[in-house]
Amino acid sequence: MPPLPVIIDCDPGIDDTLALLTAFVSPELDILGITPVCGNQPLDRTLRNALQICELGGRTDIPVYAGCARPLLRAPIHGQFHGKTGLGNTVLPEPVKTAEPTSAVRFLTDTLRAAAARGAPVTLCALGPMTNLATALRMAPSIAGGIARIVMMGGAYREPGNRTMTSEFNVLADPHAAAIVFSSNIPIVALALDATHQVILTPDHVPQFAQAGGRLSTTLAELMAFWDRNDPGRYGSRGGPLHDPLVIAYLLAPHLFTTQRARIFVECHSELCMGQTIADWYGKSGLAPNADIVTRVDAEGVIGLVLERLSRYAAK
Amino acid sequence: MPPLPVIIDCDPGIDDTLALLTAFVSPELDILGITPVCGNQPLDRTLRNALQICELGGRTDIPVYAGCARPLLRAPIHGQFHGKTGLGNTVLPEPVKTAEPTSAVRFLTDTLRAAAARGAPVTLCALGPMTNLATALRMAPSIAGGIARIVMMGGAYREPGNRTMTSEFNVLADPHAAAIVFSSNIPIVALALDATHQVILTPDHVPQFAQAGGRLSTTLAELMAFWDRNDPGRYGSRGGPLHDPLVIAYLLAPHLFTTQRARIFVECHSELCMGQTIADWYGKSGLAPNADIVTRVDAEGVIGLVLERLSRYAAK
Amino acid sequence: MPPLPVIIDCDPGIDDTLALLTAFVSPELDILGITPVCGNQPLDRTLRNALQICELGGRTDIPVYAGCARPLLRAPIHGQFHGKTGLGNTVLPEPVKTAEPTSAVRFLTDTLRAAAARGAPVTLCALGPMTNLATALRMAPSIAGGIARIVMMGGAYREPGNRTMTSEFNVLADPHAAAIVFSSNIPIVALALDATHQVILTPDHVPQFAQAGGRLSTTLAELMAFWDRNDPGRYGSRGGPLHDPLVIAYLLAPHLFTTQRARIFVECHSELCMGQTIADWYGKSGLAPNADIVTRVDAEGVIGLVLERLSRYAAK
Amino acid sequence: MPPLPVIIDCDPGIDDTLALLTAFVSPELDILGITPVCGNQPLDRTLRNALQICELGGRTDIPVYAGCARPLLRAPIHGQFHGKTGLGNTVLPEPVKTAEPTSAVRFLTDTLRAAAARGAPVTLCALGPMTNLATALRMAPSIAGGIARIVMMGGAYREPGNRTMTSEFNVLADPHAAAIVFSSNIPIVALALDATHQVILTPDHVPQFAQAGGRLSTTLAELMAFWDRNDPGRYGSRGGPLHDPLVIAYLLAPHLFTTQRARIFVECHSELCMGQTIADWYGKSGLAPNADIVTRVDAEGVIGLVLERLSRYAAK
Repeated sequence: MPPLPVIIDCDPGIDDTLALLTAFVSPELDILGITPVCGNQPLDRTLRNALQICELGGRTDIPVYAGCARPLLRAPIHGQFHGKTGLGNTVLPEPVKTAEPTSAVRFLTDTLRAAAARGAPVTLCALGPMTNLATALRMAPSIAGGIARIVMMGGAYREPGNRTMTSEFNVLADPHAAAIVFSSNIPIVALALDATHQVILTPDHVPQFAQAGGRLSTTLAELMAFWDRNDPGRYGSRGGPLHDPLVIAYLLAPHLFTTQRARIFVECHSELCMGQTIADWYGKSGLAPNADIVTRVDAEGVIGLVLERLSRYAAK
Repeated sequence: MPPLPVIIDCDPGIDDTLALLTAFVSPELDILGITPVCGNQPLDRTLRNALQICELGGRTDIPVYAGCARPLLRAPIHGQFHGKTGLGNTVLPEPVKTAEPTSAVRFLTDTLRAAAARGAPVTLCALGPMTNLATALRMAPSIAGGIARIVMMGGAYREPGNRTMTSEFNVLADPHAAAIVFSSNIPIVALALDATHQVILTPDHVPQFAQAGGRLSTTLAELMAFWDRNDPGRYGSRGGPLHDPLVIAYLLAPHLFTTQRARIFVECHSELCMGQTIADWYGKSGLAPNADIVTRVDAEGVIGLVLERLSRYAAK
Repeated sequence: MPPLPVIIDCDPGIDDTLALLTAFVSPELDILGITPVCGNQPLDRTLRNALQICELGGRTDIPVYAGCARPLLRAPIHGQFHGKTGLGNTVLPEPVKTAEPTSAVRFLTDTLRAAAARGAPVTLCALGPMTNLATALRMAPSIAGGIARIVMMGGAYREPGNRTMTSEFNVLADPHAAAIVFSSNIPIVALALDATHQVILTPDHVPQFAQAGGRLSTTLAELMAFWDRNDPGRYGSRGGPLHDPLVIAYLLAPHLFTTQRARIFVECHSELCMGQTIADWYGKSGLAPNADIVTRVDAEGVIGLVLERLSRYAAK
Repeated sequence: MPPLPVIIDCDPGIDDTLALLTAFVSPELDILGITPVCGNQPLDRTLRNALQICELGGRTDIPVYAGCARPLLRAPIHGQFHGKTGLGNTVLPEPVKTAEPTSAVRFLTDTLRAAAARGAPVTLCALGPMTNLATALRMAPSIAGGIARIVMMGGAYREPGNRTMTSEFNVLADPHAAAIVFSSNIPIVALALDATHQVILTPDHVPQFAQAGGRLSTTLAELMAFWDRNDPGRYGSRGGPLHDPLVIAYLLAPHLFTTQRARIFVECHSELCMGQTIADWYGKSGLAPNADIVTRVDAEGVIGLVLERLSRYAAK
């Protein structure tokens, strides 16, 4: 099987870091580009983090394109659990690698239009607010034909929100972008809090990460230690949810995930519910389903998979 | 123990009927009045149904007061599962009993103000849209001191809605009334779809109802047969959820119910989420909890309780 | 001609005071009651002010009924131009007169239902937020038949708002009440900022008020002096708009006013435009007109009329 | 004086046609490009119309770039007064000229970024929904530095809307795009209905247009005849408002226009007021003004100017 062409749209971020590092050593994936966006941190920071992570993972061959500097309409919000730089307390060397001169939106439109023309559509891994993709879709609607599907981390369906009572960070940060994507009829796989809160990395896992990662061991252990929310009332134990790596894990091992089909929507009008994702489980909307929402995850299977991948850095 | 003084605010409706009939034969409750409102059916119909149910249950001694003829702001909506009259295919005799000349809102303000003055607050059983109570609260705010608590059937927290993707019928029918009640700081017990969808009356239960009810047997069997939604995809089996009787069951046997405290809110601005109830499970709002939301129900315990009560009609 | 039966729903307020004093000496009007509401000041203050104004004007015969203590749904807001007590710097004697034991909503429902039964409908003068009337309409919809029309001060159609960019104080203070009234199909005469900003009481008028009012002279001069907004950029000169008295003037001398028929609406969903009134001047809504919106006022005619009426106090 | 570099963003449309033809023969303007967008007609039609108008006006030298095929978030709406093709009953020859291969958004970002770099900012003439510009601003925020100002036809401040009670077509068609532009801090000149409804082209003007235009005479007369709304109740006479040409006239003869500075906003949340533009005339928002709103227009001066320009075609 030829590797799956993917673009990783992200806002690193600690869990984005783990997702990228997992993807970097997965030959099943052909990473065409990385497109950092304003999200967990402002754009200059997520861009810099992406460059540093490429260097950390030894994948300076992957082009990185600067994405949108702010959400479509709402004022930027940033993550609360990623520390001052977006990488916890971890300090990585000043990057030598630089971003491409082309913007992320132009990279997306050019690449996806070409993919549509070739009949070889690309999989979009959406690990942050979807501003880049939404902007590209409005600029060049035909790129939809170049997207095989969007595997997104974001939203909260039956699960309450993590940033507000109803809303998950990535979707809340740019609900209008999500609205554009959800109404595009591009097939979506949704890894929402319903899925990611099933996969809690506890302090017990930290030594395993420390062990797995070869020269990355210290960094991984540091990041994972920082990730502990220390909120057992919410998560059932200490630790933190493995949000973004689930997107990569889903591509590598879909059998670890159970999904349910539904039409999905996002609230863009009311402050109380702003950014809430809504699934039409019972056909109330009269619209055809456009998403596979992950309802169950084999948590130990996923953690094992990520650990196995990270252990490949030891061999390098 | 003296009986608990209650007012039953309702919009009968098949499940309201079962709730009223259960309450009628429960000496633990002192029913001060019944206040039908526009809801499952227009007011003239819910009022007439309430009078007929009093006669059916032999409780013509309980005064019935006509409530509000329409929601505060939204256009009236009516129930979809109660048939043309609100009582399925059941035809009850033309009622002899008549409504009191006083309106429900005046009855509520007078009764609750007196209860506040006596220091003997009353429990409000809210089985329909809460227009009556909201109007009374705005007319005479001091009546809040005469309400021990509101035990309400309505809303949907983690569970999807039953009328729209997000919203349960009773709250959707008058979300502004719910907003007035939720912001009143009166203690609330919320029996939402999260609770009522745990208690499905299946066709297997119908014969039990038929057997239980003495001279009511035929009527009960008819109503329960009509109540079958025939939608196992939603309810896990054939049958229908025992919504309103749970309010009465909760008062009679609270040990059958598990609750979680939270602040509750209702969406009144966006059409997409209109009438959605929201629980602040994790303290995001900064407001103190005002509700005990029922999260788990001993379904067989509740059904057994209701059957036992209805069997008292056989002895009459 | 027999006097016109009116109820004055108000939230005094300096301009309410002038309106009430004008009405008190107008034999064309039979004032059935005054119903202060939360508005320019909290209820306890507007109630007390109403009682004091009755004593000031020598009309202790008019019953005063305490209205609603807060708007239907929004948090109370109060006026910015009426000073700490609602009467500028004017200190009136502690009132001897007391409010009736009945609430304003009950007074409205009883009086208007009786008026409907007698076929002798009453004119509602709405000088403040319309919470009382809206609550009464939901409690007893049939009272609509007892209302000849509502002559309201409130809203802003082509004119910008005075409290927010789009919204006038009275309607913004309880937009949901306005929505209930506007959708009731009761005929409305709307004296919005479009009208009241045409009638500016300038400092030049103050001596005329001082002269006119006999024993009220000092009080009137004080109130008018306080009323100066000192904002020629907005009002074209110093002084302040004669809002509420226009309602009384309209009843006494409708020939001083030009109106245009339109359906009117109020925005209740968006914070940006909350409380904005909207006129369907060109039939876009497909709904029949329900209001006569005053578009032009003979300002000197109105001021002359008010002065003439106030001069009657000199004769007392 | 060197000619003013402008980009004409438009959705032709009859009045766009007149604006383009006026601009084509105005040496004061250096038209860098034309960027048709979905608006009065679907994109394929506005693009085709733009190409035809270039040929009609003998300006096939101006590059035309296809803009966005739909609004950012709302479903497309189209004009009601431009006939089936967008050009009334006028049939123009199949265009030989073709659109550039580059998209309008890419043209905007490339041109404006270069303009920013050169310190030679460009004036944006916005004659339609501002989807192209909004998309470019989110893709490449630095282009703001390449825009001298945006002279836009759109919105309705004191004047009611023309598509809904509150909203003008261009802004309603993509209110989210307007929100992005209004919050960009780029200086705006707003030619709203407040201005354009002062300049009514009546049937009396038609012969003047017929006479003026040389070889364009028949076409101009046809377009103007079609433009008659036949609605004197709204416009004060027969005829139709000269919307889009006012943008060009403003650039050529600003002395014909009176403006007032204000911050401007657009409603994006409520269906009732969706797309309404709001001016903060009195500093209620606390934000600095970002727009010069045209409040008065010398109508005959503008019509004379347009006629004079169109008469230049006779000389060709």
